[in-house]
Amino acid sequence: MEENSDRLVMKFGGTSVGDLERIERVARHVRAEIERGRKVCVTVSAMSGETNRLVDLTEKAGGGDVSRTPDYDAVVSTGEQVTAGLLALVLQRQGIRARSWQGWQAGLRTDDSHGAAVIEDIDGETLGAAIDTGEIAVVSGFQGVSPDGRISTLGRGGSDTTAVALAAALGAFRCDIYTDVDGVYTTDPRIVPGARRLDRISFEEMLEMASLGAKVLQTRSVGLGMTHNVPIRVLSSLEEPQDDPANTLITSEEHIMERRVVSAVVPSRAEAKISLLGVPNTPGKSATIFAGLASAKVNIDMIVQSQARAGEAANVSFTLKEADLSRALSHLAEMKDEVGYTDVIADQNVSKVSIIGVGMNDTSGVAAQMFRTLAERGINIQNISTSEIKISVLIPAEYTELAVRALHDAFELGTVGAAGAGGPRAFV
Amino acid sequence: MEENSDRLVMKFGGTSVGDLERIERVARHVRAEIERGRKVCVTVSAMSGETNRLVDLTEKAGGGDVSRTPDYDAVVSTGEQVTAGLLALVLQRQGIRARSWQGWQAGLRTDDSHGAAVIEDIDGETLGAAIDTGEIAVVSGFQGVSPDGRISTLGRGGSDTTAVALAAALGAFRCDIYTDVDGVYTTDPRIVPGARRLDRISFEEMLEMASLGAKVLQTRSVGLGMTHNVPIRVLSSLEEPQDDPANTLITSEEHIMERRVVSAVVPSRAEAKISLLGVPNTPGKSATIFAGLASAKVNIDMIVQSQARAGEAANVSFTLKEADLSRALSHLAEMKDEVGYTDVIADQNVSKVSIIGVGMNDTSGVAAQMFRTLAERGINIQNISTSEIKISVLIPAEYTELAVRALHDAFELGTVGAAGAGGPRAFV
Repeated sequence: MEENSDRLVMKFGGTSVGDLERIERVARHVRAEIERGRKVCVTVSAMSGETNRLVDLTEKAGGGDVSRTPDYDAVVSTGEQVTAGLLALVLQRQGIRARSWQGWQAGLRTDDSHGAAVIEDIDGETLGAAIDTGEIAVVSGFQGVSPDGRISTLGRGGSDTTAVALAAALGAFRCDIYTDVDGVYTTDPRIVPGARRLDRISFEEMLEMASLGAKVLQTRSVGLGMTHNVPIRVLSSLEEPQDDPANTLITSEEHIMERRVVSAVVPSRAEAKISLLGVPNTPGKSATIFAGLASAKVNIDMIVQSQARAGEAANVSFTLKEADLSRALSHLAEMKDEVGYTDVIADQNVSKVSIIGVGMNDTSGVAAQMFRTLAERGINIQNISTSEIKISVLIPAEYTELAVRALHDAFELGTVGAAGAGGPRAFV
Repeated sequence: MEENSDRLVMKFGGTSVGDLERIERVARHVRAEIERGRKVCVTVSAMSGETNRLVDLTEKAGGGDVSRTPDYDAVVSTGEQVTAGLLALVLQRQGIRARSWQGWQAGLRTDDSHGAAVIEDIDGETLGAAIDTGEIAVVSGFQGVSPDGRISTLGRGGSDTTAVALAAALGAFRCDIYTDVDGVYTTDPRIVPGARRLDRISFEEMLEMASLGAKVLQTRSVGLGMTHNVPIRVLSSLEEPQDDPANTLITSEEHIMERRVVSAVVPSRAEAKISLLGVPNTPGKSATIFAGLASAKVNIDMIVQSQARAGEAANVSFTLKEADLSRALSHLAEMKDEVGYTDVIADQNVSKVSIIGVGMNDTSGVAAQMFRTLAERGINIQNISTSEIKISVLIPAEYTELAVRALHDAFELGTVGAAGAGGPRAFV
């Protein structure tokens, strides 16, 4: 889609619209962009707490989790509808032309996976024509319309996805995600007080960080930004509008002149490890195990298979989200005869620490430096997995903070312009 | 439209769906009708208190009353959307096929008077086909879609209107309005403990009662029932389903075999009286006064013009809703020079008492009996107005209860089968 250089999408999450005072501040952010000459489409989440309240009502009415039903969506989507209407009213009171748009009005079409729908199309023409007249479009986030004309929701975090999809459909020059932090950091500042905010980060790196559980942006929205090449700016809605606010711009690699080797260290605590002992060495056993777990919707990571001698039974271990542990274990118990393992061991006292960086692939010795750094602190690595721009290790949970601090230091992420494996940190 | 003898519309108001326990009881009422072989369309209000909460939010956001704007409608309509979704979920949990319908999904088209829209059309085909499959349609009351595709609301009480309009569009054999009372009474039981529930009442009588402020049904819904000849049954949602529940059926006169002279005595307290003294006796003065008040949206009732001698200045007095009094007075103050009156007197200590009955028109002496009854109690009548089926008098407010009890007795409304001006009270 052609880029319209004055069209901007702004997204405000639940805490940013938590009460009317905050909605007033959102309106000031919108006004600041109008004064910069932008044609603005805003998308909003439900006021914080509201989605939980509505979900709770559906669970009481439906006698359990009914989040995959159209009527759940009809109830839960009202949270965003209220916020969108209220923001339009606040803008109008300030003399700004504005109107609220529901998903079905904006032609935001999804598939029929109620409660976790995927956006298939947005009618960018209608919405684009509306904002080009100078009217602010306030779009209810998180919702669309299914093929049979019912309200659908995109699942938790879907408001980020709505924002980036709107930006893509409108050919906006940027998508601004206002949240309760002012950007993306080199690591969790609660662990490393010297963690630095990144000025720019590539889509690929952000995607790895989001899938590792960094809460600042939802994975799907980053992927959508990458696919449609929509720069995403993360900034704080808790500040008043400024000319040059603190932020992190997530953009394509070509817009990041100086490539860092390592950009961030990401801890991920909600991990568990399962080891199956004495798995018979016959072809197809691994396929049986992992196909079975996949059918139980358990996502598996970091698989390691070890065998002392050829022909002997093997040990298979893998990591998974802690939340999936009991489901995985009960499924494995059902499969015991089929797989033929002798024992199963579950360990929740593990955590995953990852280093991420687009430059990693071209630079030898990054993995070695990571392992050496951890070994020097006496941290035992249980599993390892790597991608082109990421190295993850599984370690005992109690070493999490120590490992993060050591790696943040080793790759010199906290200092600007220093030499070392972290490389220069001046970006355009 | 052709009547479909097994289609039924059921409507549940705000107190009937006030919490999940009550919604469960609503589901039992729906189930009872399914077991009777009915094809059911249900329409619901917002949970009690919810509309007020939402209106309050719009007023804070919009800086005052914004009830005539589309964004107000977007916010306030969510109350019904939530209830409809929750009832559908409760029915599904009980193994009953059901789905919620928003106004725009049900093709409930209105004009563009946001906040007080009028229904123009309902797509009875789609909804009718859905319920004929045995699926329960749960329609959000009070809302529709405007000509430009935005959500509209029908204004307070609009859920009754939605129900009757749905019944008309579906050709339903009846529209059941479940509320917190079990029918329509001969008078306010708080004033006359011996007030009786009416088994049947004509549309015309109910229309007069509703426009006098009887809260059991909204005027517009009764008018719609009369126009489309949809029998409306009023019954209590606070009871469990029964084979033969207490109720009042509002129907056309031909279905009421024995016409009563007087059916009900209706007090109306929220009245006020304005008297303009010394209005010059030139043509068109009355027109000037009442056209001016109409332009200020003040509804006028019971106009009396008195003149001692031809050619002299006249006194003009009229009644109006107490809520409109200050608006009327400030408008009259502006018109003082134009009208040329010498003084204006406002009196809030008045109330209107009316007797209503379709048989009144054929029976002489009803008015005489009414005036005599009040005179015997020493109650002074200030103004009188009559229609074919109603006589209203304005009296000092302090006599309201006395007048109601006296008239209820005089027309023998509390006793069954007795002779007298009230007439026989056995209806088919």
